Amino acid sequence: MRIDINADVGESYGLYKIGEDHELFQSITSANIACGFHAGDYNVMFSSVKLAAEREVAVGAHPGYPDIQGFGRRNIEMTPSEIYNCVVYQIGALKAFCDVNGISLQHVKPHGALYNKGASDAQTAKAIAEATYDAAPNAILFGLAGSQLLKQAEIAGLKTAAEAFADRTYTEDGYLTPRSKAQSVLTDRNLILEQVKNIVIHKKVRTLSGSWISLNAETICFHGDGKNSAAITRFIRAELEKEGISVLSAGDMK
Amino acid sequence: MRIDINADVGESYGLYKIGEDHELFQSITSANIACGFHAGDYNVMFSSVKLAAEREVAVGAHPGYPDIQGFGRRNIEMTPSEIYNCVVYQIGALKAFCDVNGISLQHVKPHGALYNKGASDAQTAKAIAEATYDAAPNAILFGLAGSQLLKQAEIAGLKTAAEAFADRTYTEDGYLTPRSKAQSVLTDRNLILEQVKNIVIHKKVRTLSGSWISLNAETICFHGDGKNSAAITRFIRAELEKEGISVLSAGDMK
Amino acid sequence: MRIDINADVGESYGLYKIGEDHELFQSITSANIACGFHAGDYNVMFSSVKLAAEREVAVGAHPGYPDIQGFGRRNIEMTPSEIYNCVVYQIGALKAFCDVNGISLQHVKPHGALYNKGASDAQTAKAIAEATYDAAPNAILFGLAGSQLLKQAEIAGLKTAAEAFADRTYTEDGYLTPRSKAQSVLTDRNLILEQVKNIVIHKKVRTLSGSWISLNAETICFHGDGKNSAAITRFIRAELEKEGISVLSAGDMK
Amino acid sequence: MRIDINADVGESYGLYKIGEDHELFQSITSANIACGFHAGDYNVMFSSVKLAAEREVAVGAHPGYPDIQGFGRRNIEMTPSEIYNCVVYQIGALKAFCDVNGISLQHVKPHGALYNKGASDAQTAKAIAEATYDAAPNAILFGLAGSQLLKQAEIAGLKTAAEAFADRTYTEDGYLTPRSKAQSVLTDRNLILEQVKNIVIHKKVRTLSGSWISLNAETICFHGDGKNSAAITRFIRAELEKEGISVLSAGDMK
Repeated sequence: MRIDINADVGESYGLYKIGEDHELFQSITSANIACGFHAGDYNVMFSSVKLAAEREVAVGAHPGYPDIQGFGRRNIEMTPSEIYNCVVYQIGALKAFCDVNGISLQHVKPHGALYNKGASDAQTAKAIAEATYDAAPNAILFGLAGSQLLKQAEIAGLKTAAEAFADRTYTEDGYLTPRSKAQSVLTDRNLILEQVKNIVIHKKVRTLSGSWISLNAETICFHGDGKNSAAITRFIRAELEKEGISVLSAGDMK
Repeated sequence: MRIDINADVGESYGLYKIGEDHELFQSITSANIACGFHAGDYNVMFSSVKLAAEREVAVGAHPGYPDIQGFGRRNIEMTPSEIYNCVVYQIGALKAFCDVNGISLQHVKPHGALYNKGASDAQTAKAIAEATYDAAPNAILFGLAGSQLLKQAEIAGLKTAAEAFADRTYTEDGYLTPRSKAQSVLTDRNLILEQVKNIVIHKKVRTLSGSWISLNAETICFHGDGKNSAAITRFIRAELEKEGISVLSAGDMK
Repeated sequence: MRIDINADVGESYGLYKIGEDHELFQSITSANIACGFHAGDYNVMFSSVKLAAEREVAVGAHPGYPDIQGFGRRNIEMTPSEIYNCVVYQIGALKAFCDVNGISLQHVKPHGALYNKGASDAQTAKAIAEATYDAAPNAILFGLAGSQLLKQAEIAGLKTAAEAFADRTYTEDGYLTPRSKAQSVLTDRNLILEQVKNIVIHKKVRTLSGSWISLNAETICFHGDGKNSAAITRFIRAELEKEGISVLSAGDMK
Repeated sequence: MRIDINADVGESYGLYKIGEDHELFQSITSANIACGFHAGDYNVMFSSVKLAAEREVAVGAHPGYPDIQGFGRRNIEMTPSEIYNCVVYQIGALKAFCDVNGISLQHVKPHGALYNKGASDAQTAKAIAEATYDAAPNAILFGLAGSQLLKQAEIAGLKTAAEAFADRTYTEDGYLTPRSKAQSVLTDRNLILEQVKNIVIHKKVRTLSGSWISLNAETICFHGDGKNSAAITRFIRAELEKEGISVLSAGDMK
């Protein structure tokens, strides 16, 4: 058994600091690095990619809606061709920081509202998948297990990694409980561990209403911006390894 | 005798339109495409690169300061490493649009205040040159003839093209007369033709004060945002060709 | 019979120019001045308010979503309290330019997607109305005739002016045909004149499907960003005055 | 003896949090609230002004350069009339939040690079002073003791408050040691207390080179974004009050 552990990093902006990237980099195998649209700026991108290169953590582009104030968490009406262009731009920018740091881009994972829209809306998913294929044909597209995004990625000819979330609860139909709802986020590390183990070992997850749904994930997302998030991630990784589960990057699996 | 004709294009933004790109593309051989920082956005970048590809005009990245309101024409205090990161980012973004349109990036030319700072300030020039080399080692760096930028580009190991300006007047020391001064811009097409011919044929230019300075240029910049700029560029190109001068892209010369 | 003629002005941004404000100011009685969020910047705002003051055109704040690239024409997910804050901010900024030019703020008219959302969505309408009342209790709120915005404005205690559009076609239920649809905009000046006369004299408008609906408007919006828009506005105003209709600002009517 | 204690607050932006505003509000008498240009957004402004109103802390506008990424700490080339417009805009926006919270604007204090430029450059100082007078004639302008800003404020007809800094060191000529230099900031609370006492009681300050210069300050700035800044401010205030010094807002003094 094996799993990739990913987290959103590089989300600081100018003087504004978010996340415990240095600590997180000790536990994750794939880093989703913000591309300057919902978070991050060119300085943060450079230092985040450099840190990932030093720690030998695989790097992915983490494109989002152009909205620093909203942190990419609110929908902006954009046509599929605008989304295509917006994603091409961000992948290109992040790839350049990979180039100057002598590493290659492993994956692409859309952020926030763009991720969610791409999970359920085929047109958006197609735009993201084609942008990724055209700008980075060898990249692995990360998307919610069972989502439109993964379907469109396969149609586009991309490698994919189905993603589950360590600390987000699930609805009956396999989507994430929206952040605006109660109980959308788990904060107890033992509940998080239990959810992760169910996903990795038993390939299923318990929904908020108590039923079980099957879930086939190759990578698990840990959040970097919560309290103790780095400590929780380290704890979970250690527990997984105790169970004999290999933690390695999506690229190393393929 | 031969010369490259370049122009700044792709400088529209959202609903805001600037320039006569479609007409200009009939006369130029190298297009400097804005990268979303001083002008341009991801949609404009896509359509500009696509148009260049269709018209077989060579494409360059045109990075500027992050300042849409100021159109990249005012200085922003940035350290050399911030300038390096800022240029890497923009080259990467533009390169991605070259990739998705199946063409390669020919050159990099900094914009406005960044171009001017790089002309005289060695630290800034070095940051731009190294960013270009690291993000696009095969690109030709365009810079003012005799500038720090060209010196640093050679040190960095880049190909270069010395640039002159068709419609900007020159000071005694070979810099452009600042836009804030009177007579900084020529608008009479015959004066522009005369200046261009002096540069291409005689390798010299008359300064505002009336003296001559020598000027060795491989590419000449025409402005795309003035009145009749596309018509003037077409006129000058036709006149040059009548004189037996080959107009071809910097990349085709090398 | 009397009518106010309003137009959106001050929508240039930095070097980017939109609209024929100088010519328009000869024909309009109320100017909706962009507040820096969807268009306009502090320099454009200053010169637009100054011009209005000189021409004795009444000034209104024209707040929009924070989205220069989208020109405020696309929805951004915002809670009612965020909309309230966003509108308070923009009214305050515009009012300051009225203060420094020695005039008072006559009205507030939301822009683009915010205007449309406020027309049909009671929560949004309430947020806009309360922001206007709290930041500028004496301002007249302009809103689509029959809209939620006007209802909420009355509840909030504001003066209102019902608005009709000179060159936008109407649906059966009294909304504007979305810009994304064919025939959403009239361009023939005689068709525009006919629509305006029907509105002012007969208090009705013909919908796209050919039926008539009644429409009670105190102010009519002319667009400033189309071709010949200033010329059309001048033509219509002259025709109205020939019919003996008084063209005067909403504030002068009240 | 009496003194006003001010601090920069409301500098969070979207999801990005900076400062310990809630704690600081227990110790300060004047709050400089960011206006959305270098920091703050309309939501942060609303809640900051509301909090100040509840705590009965006097409110000031804290305008800066339009530069979230640079936090207003780097110069942007702007003409005096652009600075005038930029300051008018921000004062207007902040005043609107005072209006909707039922309080009045006490003061204006420019931020960061704009503050420093206004301290030494007469043209910039004049633009800021006139913008303040025109947009808020009753506001008190806060400026560095002995600065151009205070001179121009008096010429413009404004009330002023000379400002000193609790934790910034001084050069021989009475300016602040630039942040880029070593020892520009004091972090030891006893050294800060000593400097504050010297300023309030003895009207002098020791410069970095060890000499004493006289300093006549009516308000002292405490920083809100450092470690333990709220705790240090509380400590100093308590110590001042033990000495029988009245801590009250600049407006209450006048």
